[in-house]
Amino acid sequence: MKKSLYMDIYGRISSDILSGNIAPGEKIPSKRQMQALLSVSQTTVETAYGALAAEGYIYSRAGSGYYACEIEKPACRAPLPDEITPDEPEPPFGISLSADDTDTSVFPYSAWAKITRETLCGDARLLKRGDPAGDMELRREICSYLREIRGVSCVPGQITVGAGMEYVTGMILQLLPIDAAFALEDPGYKSVYKRLSLAGKSICPVPVDENGLLVGSLSKTPADIVYVTPSHQFPTGVTMPVSRRASLLRWANEKEERYIIEDDYDSEFRYSAKTVPAMQGMDENRKVIYIGTFSRALAPSIRIAYAVLPPALLKKYKELSGDLSSTVSRFEQQTLAAFMNRGLYTRHLRRAGNLYRQKQTLFRSVLSKTPGLRVSGAEAGLHFLVTVEGKSESELKRAAEKEGIRVFGLSDFRCRKSAEDEKSGTLIIGFAGLSLEKIESCAETLRRVWSEL
Amino acid sequence: MKKSLYMDIYGRISSDILSGNIAPGEKIPSKRQMQALLSVSQTTVETAYGALAAEGYIYSRAGSGYYACEIEKPACRAPLPDEITPDEPEPPFGISLSADDTDTSVFPYSAWAKITRETLCGDARLLKRGDPAGDMELRREICSYLREIRGVSCVPGQITVGAGMEYVTGMILQLLPIDAAFALEDPGYKSVYKRLSLAGKSICPVPVDENGLLVGSLSKTPADIVYVTPSHQFPTGVTMPVSRRASLLRWANEKEERYIIEDDYDSEFRYSAKTVPAMQGMDENRKVIYIGTFSRALAPSIRIAYAVLPPALLKKYKELSGDLSSTVSRFEQQTLAAFMNRGLYTRHLRRAGNLYRQKQTLFRSVLSKTPGLRVSGAEAGLHFLVTVEGKSESELKRAAEKEGIRVFGLSDFRCRKSAEDEKSGTLIIGFAGLSLEKIESCAETLRRVWSEL
Repeated sequence: MKKSLYMDIYGRISSDILSGNIAPGEKIPSKRQMQALLSVSQTTVETAYGALAAEGYIYSRAGSGYYACEIEKPACRAPLPDEITPDEPEPPFGISLSADDTDTSVFPYSAWAKITRETLCGDARLLKRGDPAGDMELRREICSYLREIRGVSCVPGQITVGAGMEYVTGMILQLLPIDAAFALEDPGYKSVYKRLSLAGKSICPVPVDENGLLVGSLSKTPADIVYVTPSHQFPTGVTMPVSRRASLLRWANEKEERYIIEDDYDSEFRYSAKTVPAMQGMDENRKVIYIGTFSRALAPSIRIAYAVLPPALLKKYKELSGDLSSTVSRFEQQTLAAFMNRGLYTRHLRRAGNLYRQKQTLFRSVLSKTPGLRVSGAEAGLHFLVTVEGKSESELKRAAEKEGIRVFGLSDFRCRKSAEDEKSGTLIIGFAGLSLEKIESCAETLRRVWSEL
Repeated sequence: MKKSLYMDIYGRISSDILSGNIAPGEKIPSKRQMQALLSVSQTTVETAYGALAAEGYIYSRAGSGYYACEIEKPACRAPLPDEITPDEPEPPFGISLSADDTDTSVFPYSAWAKITRETLCGDARLLKRGDPAGDMELRREICSYLREIRGVSCVPGQITVGAGMEYVTGMILQLLPIDAAFALEDPGYKSVYKRLSLAGKSICPVPVDENGLLVGSLSKTPADIVYVTPSHQFPTGVTMPVSRRASLLRWANEKEERYIIEDDYDSEFRYSAKTVPAMQGMDENRKVIYIGTFSRALAPSIRIAYAVLPPALLKKYKELSGDLSSTVSRFEQQTLAAFMNRGLYTRHLRRAGNLYRQKQTLFRSVLSKTPGLRVSGAEAGLHFLVTVEGKSESELKRAAEKEGIRVFGLSDFRCRKSAEDEKSGTLIIGFAGLSLEKIESCAETLRRVWSEL
């Protein structure tokens, strides 16, 4: 195919016809003329004329040549907007302490590359459409991991793999009643809040205390679905104790259509001896939809997340997904499956966990030199919280920003503003993306500017 | 981490507490006793007890040991459903002529594997979260391809990459008014129909004639958004001529909130000289959302599709997508970008197109031996239609199924049943997945059983 040549000819003639430069019924140059005129091949001209004829721009009369068709033009030519504006430049912060960041330097590049090569040399069947829920090899590995490490009660058939947490959450929405109201932790994930609002769902924010989501407040809402992060609440970092979990499960059991979405956020990295199993394992009534992702533990650019569906929803999922394809490349699914199967994933989690623990310890040890700074939510995950008594969140942020450090506060994750944030500011310190050197200087700066306030 | 050992201990004690076998306030064995009892390491026991304490199953009294907490149990233990039923076995057809199938034997395995290896050896920055709309390298390549081969008017910033057509369509839904009604071609894509119903959208089926969607009928519906396949209507295979396209664009221009989703289905494979550019290129008022995929042209297991957003929707997309991640692995994005950049994609399309043309020609040449069989929609794509005068669709299907051949009929893709299908049956012949040898015998069988009816 001559890429742009035929399109050139097509474009010139069609726009001349649309603009009226070539009048309806007017004869257009013959193919031979056009070929000589532009010094192009016969095929190029034939392709262009074929396209013009197929679309009804021109028609041929036997033995006479080609003529322009009469075309009613699209009405109301609006003025065209200016060129697409390029994306805005990044904010001018030298350092951003976002809880989303991870350290990609621990990614097991060579092992991953080696397995990918093997996967690509292997089975041509991997080019075919796979199971919409994901390849069974990967679902088996995820299932074993969840059973052994997270105490999740499941079989591989319950696991559904998808391209990231947003995708998996969106998929779950399709399995739940369309008019179901959702309860969300407040403070909590803004992005889940946003996705649900966009999907037109009604949302009930529920406050969080030092034991996580308040089930009493939840009961007062019309919500039948609740989205919780019991292992390491985002962003407060608290762990929901078993008694609270039991009341949450009781809430779910009160009505048939109630479900709990358990986002096992940052469960891969825990720094105390207290390894906390997933709530799903406590649930005997199949009310918990368990979700997790590999994007934080492995690398943000690897888009593999998963859900463990309770039997009732699994049935619905199978009805809906028959004509779909998985959203994850099968090559990558198979690579991850082999990576897990060879024990490389748990080894990676250990290595990464040690590095993150080291980073967190360093950050906290510098901050703790200053009295009045209180650290919390530090048992797990890639962020912790620091509260500065008597200083407002906005003061603390401004002081950091003056030094080129961007920090986020609790209020950034609240559905409703809280007067408390202005009395004692609590900041979310995402430390994973910084090198140890940077952590030291950054923590030192924060400590200094905050104690000077 | 001792994988299942600590979980064993945790599981036994927690379920004994939950079931009442260990009463509230009862002392549980000391860590040392437990260690000796089970011959496990100190760390294992400490991890288990730590988890039990963290979740509130047990508490410690200084110098005295561990005791069971009082836990209110989740109410109403429903009987558990039986084991998850395994997926149903595939239907017992020897051959399925699905229009979804492709021929993966032409996939350029070695070139793809080579570029993947290069991508994996390369830039560690690829592990980081990328642009939610996709890596710019890939968007640039898609943009050039669309401009040169499909006549689409766009810049790379307008391209959004996502994990498959369903994902991209779902993303577009979020950019359109939540209560917008959608017009769909009837017959058309059942899966789009299903997705939209699940999303709670109101749907207006619009009939299709030999020039595609009937714009007159569309105008009578309350729909403001229309989903069309103008290049090769699915499933009828007709091409919408320019005059019909112009009226469709005029319809869109009548109201500000109207949009056309142009699914450029199977545009990669055209067998006549008539290469038909995309409708988007005709649109001067930025009313067309153009969508396409690589899953059919490359391989079904590669999940990369894209949309070209008009400026107004692009603005909205940027507001919404700030906190999202792309749904496509960056390794695969970069592999595809390099593959296109080196001209391998257009070369692959030529090779695959030749093979598909050969398959289609063979299939048609066998069928055409029988009078009364009429082939249509064969100018492009991986399926064509065959109509058998005077025979009902169900008769034709049954006759094929007796021979182990599964065929789909027009009625499988209709929103509303049509009496016509029972007068003259029209079947959709997806030929891409069969080898040339199988095509010959399969076509011969169909010809025979249909002419015997």
